[in-house]
Amino acid sequence: MHDRRSFMKLGAGVAAAGAMLPLTASAKCAEDDVSWDGEYEVVIIGSGFAGLAAAVEAKHKGAKDVVIFEKMGVYGGNSTLNAGQACFAGTDLQKKLGIKDSADLMVKDQLKSGRGVASESLLRHSAELGPYVYQMTKDCGCVYRDFIITTGGTSATRSHQVVERSGSGFIQPMLKTARKMGVETQIRHKFEHLIHDKKGRVIGVNIRKGYHFGFEDSGELINIKAKRGVIIATGGFGYNISLRQAQDPTLTAEVGCTNAKGATGDGLIEMLAAGATPVHLAHIQSGPWASPDEGGFGYGAGFSLYNFPHSIAIDRNTGQRFMNEIADRKTRADLELQRRDQNGNPNPALLIAPKHEAKNDPSMAKVLKYNVAWEFDSVEAIAKHFDVPLQPLKQQIADWNSYVDKGEDPQFGKRMNAGRGIKLTAPFIVQRLWPKVHYCQGGIQINTKAEVLAAKTGKPIPGLFAAGEVTGGIHGVSRLGGCSTPECLAFGVTAARSIMEA
Amino acid sequence: MHDRRSFMKLGAGVAAAGAMLPLTASAKCAEDDVSWDGEYEVVIIGSGFAGLAAAVEAKHKGAKDVVIFEKMGVYGGNSTLNAGQACFAGTDLQKKLGIKDSADLMVKDQLKSGRGVASESLLRHSAELGPYVYQMTKDCGCVYRDFIITTGGTSATRSHQVVERSGSGFIQPMLKTARKMGVETQIRHKFEHLIHDKKGRVIGVNIRKGYHFGFEDSGELINIKAKRGVIIATGGFGYNISLRQAQDPTLTAEVGCTNAKGATGDGLIEMLAAGATPVHLAHIQSGPWASPDEGGFGYGAGFSLYNFPHSIAIDRNTGQRFMNEIADRKTRADLELQRRDQNGNPNPALLIAPKHEAKNDPSMAKVLKYNVAWEFDSVEAIAKHFDVPLQPLKQQIADWNSYVDKGEDPQFGKRMNAGRGIKLTAPFIVQRLWPKVHYCQGGIQINTKAEVLAAKTGKPIPGLFAAGEVTGGIHGVSRLGGCSTPECLAFGVTAARSIMEA
Repeated sequence: MHDRRSFMKLGAGVAAAGAMLPLTASAKCAEDDVSWDGEYEVVIIGSGFAGLAAAVEAKHKGAKDVVIFEKMGVYGGNSTLNAGQACFAGTDLQKKLGIKDSADLMVKDQLKSGRGVASESLLRHSAELGPYVYQMTKDCGCVYRDFIITTGGTSATRSHQVVERSGSGFIQPMLKTARKMGVETQIRHKFEHLIHDKKGRVIGVNIRKGYHFGFEDSGELINIKAKRGVIIATGGFGYNISLRQAQDPTLTAEVGCTNAKGATGDGLIEMLAAGATPVHLAHIQSGPWASPDEGGFGYGAGFSLYNFPHSIAIDRNTGQRFMNEIADRKTRADLELQRRDQNGNPNPALLIAPKHEAKNDPSMAKVLKYNVAWEFDSVEAIAKHFDVPLQPLKQQIADWNSYVDKGEDPQFGKRMNAGRGIKLTAPFIVQRLWPKVHYCQGGIQINTKAEVLAAKTGKPIPGLFAAGEVTGGIHGVSRLGGCSTPECLAFGVTAARSIMEA
Repeated sequence: MHDRRSFMKLGAGVAAAGAMLPLTASAKCAEDDVSWDGEYEVVIIGSGFAGLAAAVEAKHKGAKDVVIFEKMGVYGGNSTLNAGQACFAGTDLQKKLGIKDSADLMVKDQLKSGRGVASESLLRHSAELGPYVYQMTKDCGCVYRDFIITTGGTSATRSHQVVERSGSGFIQPMLKTARKMGVETQIRHKFEHLIHDKKGRVIGVNIRKGYHFGFEDSGELINIKAKRGVIIATGGFGYNISLRQAQDPTLTAEVGCTNAKGATGDGLIEMLAAGATPVHLAHIQSGPWASPDEGGFGYGAGFSLYNFPHSIAIDRNTGQRFMNEIADRKTRADLELQRRDQNGNPNPALLIAPKHEAKNDPSMAKVLKYNVAWEFDSVEAIAKHFDVPLQPLKQQIADWNSYVDKGEDPQFGKRMNAGRGIKLTAPFIVQRLWPKVHYCQGGIQINTKAEVLAAKTGKPIPGLFAAGEVTGGIHGVSRLGGCSTPECLAFGVTAARSIMEA
């Protein structure tokens, strides 16, 4: 369908080429041919965190008509598949809990995880919008738990979690709010191509109406005019096997992926075709909290995210720890992937959590029910079941509990106060750990106005905005947990403001 | 000029969209409008290693008319700016010198340097074509030195160097041969856009004839038909500041670059617009052999490349070595960039070479003549001039010479036989070391037939081929020295074969 877009761009041929080329006539006759099937002030592609935040903010800013097109049969996209956590710095909840934090500190943590190539300006813009975005989600009806969670690589406890412990806890209230505000929402409407005017400005989109995922020619093509601008919020490409494997030959179809099936990168590819700048596509993140005993994102992630601070991860060959259980994601995923048996086959590490604490989070019931984790009455039982050397394991657990007393981890420098002094004692809940493809740090480049920048010039492409996982360069080599949701929301808000204030 | 391409693709609109869209008429009238200003069997964009190898091989394979379009005012592009070294495994010269090597070993070295994300199939294809390519260049009149050089990260001595010690030693004989074979060559002809047919196949190019670099609208646009196929061999994007800085915020306009000014990535960007797959753009290599005391690639590179095996690199703060001087490029560049003064400002390391050996290579005269390196009679003189602690430096040099005797480097595990037992004694030649942006591992994805693969499907784009630095994913995170030239030549040859054997 490359060709359809090409045709749509045709009008643009006149201004730039018309003078010097013998094509004005045909370009003209093509011009006359662009027929619009509908028009809105703001056209948003994708109904995840970024798309919904853009829709709500556009309405706040007085947009008369706003539409969201979603290619799948349900709203929310990949945003529904996570633990419902969002890192915000400087919220009222943090103050109430006596947690000292700031946008500066959050940016510092993210720059470190970005390994020197993260965008400080984009990170700062997102972090500073955090408290506004946090309040906006609450105004939409999102309900947060009354405590805050420590996620890997952060120097302050700042991961705010909705009571549903799932992204749907953001998506459903925001979708409801957007509709209440008059935003039109359409499922099974797939973004095919951008439509440009004579000057190369994006003035609309070509949409496949009545699309059924997996049937590329299903439905009919319509042209929707965008009077103010188009916001692409189509997410990552974790499920585009050839594209991700081009970046990393080891990410074959056999490697697990936590994403929603719709994460195929179509929006990214269309923006590249429009001259957008690709950034960091090679930086693909695997989730270190995933379980090999279930498909997709699953229940294991919620369990391990809650328990990492006060639990230990064990190498089955040695019976000992091999990492700081709250290090950043890339550090942990890389180390987990090194757990192998003598034949080099995966030998997933064991996350050993104390039931007396694990039971305080609903995730425990889920992982036990679905056989993603198991309960053991003693260290002996764990060693026997998983074939782990008993004495080293006993010693490791004893050592760990002494670290809890001392408040200091001489093995891996883990921030012990995150574990709130909780001892690792029987009975234990044990989950296996093996990374899955989770997030694309890479995408197309935007600036702090969420404008899409052209690869040839580094300048904005007029009328085109993007937000969320489809963008790249913000997080660098590795993204910290709980830091995508706030970024998606912040740049969705930013794109809407840029369009409405233009 | 996005639009012009869009127009050019218009023909393709009919087949794909015609059935379902009310545009056939105008698409048709546009179709009738594509006026060709010339036609050739094989159209090659770029006159560097890849483009010239493609031209010569296309003629070998019986192509009647072949054209090379070069946007700059001279031929050779960035390929002329290097030390004229090419790693080949299994050549007659290696056998004559008693060097055991193989394509397998070369691939193994490159996979290691690629940090797990290099393409084994592309590396193997290139390595196995090495001896053929080596012979082909000799048949073109390229003359190699009668010894072979050890470059960083290789486990066998395999860098064959032309007597000119510059890429022009390849370019000039190949250009002459190509013309003798009847290849038409044009300078100041800039590739603007690809032209597709109804089925989306690439059937030609839009060229800016009479282009003057830096004046984007200079010259006139013409359409050239490619009866068999188009080969894009336009090189890297080291001089596209916004694109490289998008990948790495530290690569600002102030950072030096060894490339030819024409390395702006236009060909890469045009292929992305045609739906090609971007790979590893974030992996940009800096040359660890560069000198901060001259612009561009300069003379320092030739000097340090020749002397690294039997010389030592010193940190000015400590007077001691800080790296294996023949480690792979990324390892060395990263370590060199860590040499800083107490204020964090660059404090370039010193490469200390023995004159009694350095003088055997013509590069010494150049670096001394142009003040890129300086001669010192004693260790004291070096310490005084560069403010290096004397005793540690004296000790380091003594230690180094003991390693030469033992044939083993306990400090950094350097392969000592590469230094051929040469001692580091006065007088010394000293050059400063500071990396410069040198090579883009990233580009668009090709397969072992040099076909360009689409991002959406992973399948080849019909009629479109690419070779050389404009392609990506072959070398992974880091490319070994002397391994771009053979790859450019091998995939140029491969693209020509794929087109002629199709």
